[in-house]
Amino acid sequence: MTHDYSDALIVQEVSPRDGLQIEPTWVETTDKIALIDQLSLAGFSRIEAGSFVSPKAIAALRDGEQVFQGIIRHPGIIYVALIPNLKGAQRAIESRADELNLVMSASQTHNLANMRMRCEASLTAFGDVVSFAGDHPVRLNGSIATTFGCPFEGRIDEDRVLQLVDAYQALGIQSVTLADTTGMANPRQVERLVKRVLERVSADHLTLHFHNTRGLGLCNVLAAYEVGARRFDAALGGLGGCPFAPGASGNICTEDLVNLCDEVGIETGIDLPYLLRLSRQLPALLGHELPGQVAKAGRNCDLHPPPGYIATL
Amino acid sequence: MTHDYSDALIVQEVSPRDGLQIEPTWVETTDKIALIDQLSLAGFSRIEAGSFVSPKAIAALRDGEQVFQGIIRHPGIIYVALIPNLKGAQRAIESRADELNLVMSASQTHNLANMRMRCEASLTAFGDVVSFAGDHPVRLNGSIATTFGCPFEGRIDEDRVLQLVDAYQALGIQSVTLADTTGMANPRQVERLVKRVLERVSADHLTLHFHNTRGLGLCNVLAAYEVGARRFDAALGGLGGCPFAPGASGNICTEDLVNLCDEVGIETGIDLPYLLRLSRQLPALLGHELPGQVAKAGRNCDLHPPPGYIATL
Repeated sequence: MTHDYSDALIVQEVSPRDGLQIEPTWVETTDKIALIDQLSLAGFSRIEAGSFVSPKAIAALRDGEQVFQGIIRHPGIIYVALIPNLKGAQRAIESRADELNLVMSASQTHNLANMRMRCEASLTAFGDVVSFAGDHPVRLNGSIATTFGCPFEGRIDEDRVLQLVDAYQALGIQSVTLADTTGMANPRQVERLVKRVLERVSADHLTLHFHNTRGLGLCNVLAAYEVGARRFDAALGGLGGCPFAPGASGNICTEDLVNLCDEVGIETGIDLPYLLRLSRQLPALLGHELPGQVAKAGRNCDLHPPPGYIATL
Repeated sequence: MTHDYSDALIVQEVSPRDGLQIEPTWVETTDKIALIDQLSLAGFSRIEAGSFVSPKAIAALRDGEQVFQGIIRHPGIIYVALIPNLKGAQRAIESRADELNLVMSASQTHNLANMRMRCEASLTAFGDVVSFAGDHPVRLNGSIATTFGCPFEGRIDEDRVLQLVDAYQALGIQSVTLADTTGMANPRQVERLVKRVLERVSADHLTLHFHNTRGLGLCNVLAAYEVGARRFDAALGGLGGCPFAPGASGNICTEDLVNLCDEVGIETGIDLPYLLRLSRQLPALLGHELPGQVAKAGRNCDLHPPPGYIATL
């Protein structure tokens, strides 16, 4: 088995959005801004900085406008906002988001539960978003939630996912994200589907969004990279969670992913020691431990002094 | 990329030994026996049930004799005892352990710290163990701790590991375990070294022992399986830990590994729903949460009822 690890792996940091949105305790707007500003110094080229959804649906991120207004913009970084509909798009564009991340679910039941509308209605709304966004200098990305499984419906037919990729492209959205929303993917499934999607979408335009709900997140990243995927979402500290599994992991952990890449020789451009310092602040900010491992254990290459007694043996 | 998953993956359950040995709270002998008896019903063919080391070194397992005396032996299961020296071997054989797992470190510094002797002295002691064991119906396995990295010395030269494999074989011990004692391995390193070791040791006689200290445990299992390894240690709940990283994961989690295998179609012969019930008892027994994910999140295939409000949309 040979591995070509010469292509960089691009990490989009999503902790300010997919991480904070599930936090039970309110995180002050100034703390959100400070976190994003710190993340902007870590080497990321993309940060999902917030969402513009109904404040009734996700109160934790109701301050999207203030957050996007308050952050220090770095020229090399694309600041992304997640949006579910035209109203969200209008708010995000007013707030000068660089990219709108449209989201709908491959599963009809999950789209009803999460977006309170049928998939067809989501696609119609996205048509309006595309028309509106066309008058503004903003990028568009289309996310497909529950790509690898739905907590209500189970396995999602791969052809269904490909149809949604086609639907996004028919709307003029070339850039897509396959999201394993509740961590149901396995590496062989990932490999199979990513191969098929890469026949339609270039690697530059395909992002994989994995959750580590059942401990398979990094296995899935490696499987996707091996068949050509290059862009991955991840969250500092493994922030986030699963609404159906209190205590379970959320997003794959950025520093654990970067540590893996550093170890096997895949470039990410991210400063891991700096990232670890950021991650180690999170428990104080959020009031609980985070699932990320490397922040607790140190990098593979961090050594320890041997016990003194061995000198006497 | 093609994957041949037709060979079963053999899991050796090590929670009673490598898990419990690091627990700060004393686990009653009767509770240890009950745990092992429950594990004996899960489908394992091998359980590392305890160790016979100095009670001063590992007080948590000082009741090895009583544990081995108290458990219900199942004919299809090999009950293994870890031992560091001849005295341990004598105790283990008196306690009717089916297999002695000899352990030394590839790293001189780690062997000094852990075994309080040089590697050469460990090998000499193992010569005595082999002579003694020869008169008894007991199997022998040789473990190489810190195979993939030492917390004091860092990377271990691969040739050093191969020398120790040869040294075990020269003693007449055909069965070896490569142990990633503090979770420093990465999948490409694993692949490279396992390939080389499989030139010396048959897959039936090679066990991989990974820790999930930095979240790479299951990636390392897949990498090892892909190049021919078939036998893996794992611990219920991911029990265990890293002495250098409070809060970090220990052994790879048995139920997370079995869930991965079930999902990608590798047979293990282990009853995952039963195993999850066992794992979910551990927090009450030990007084703390465990790092295993599937016990919290459920299997990939466990679905949830959709929210009632979608019927009204």
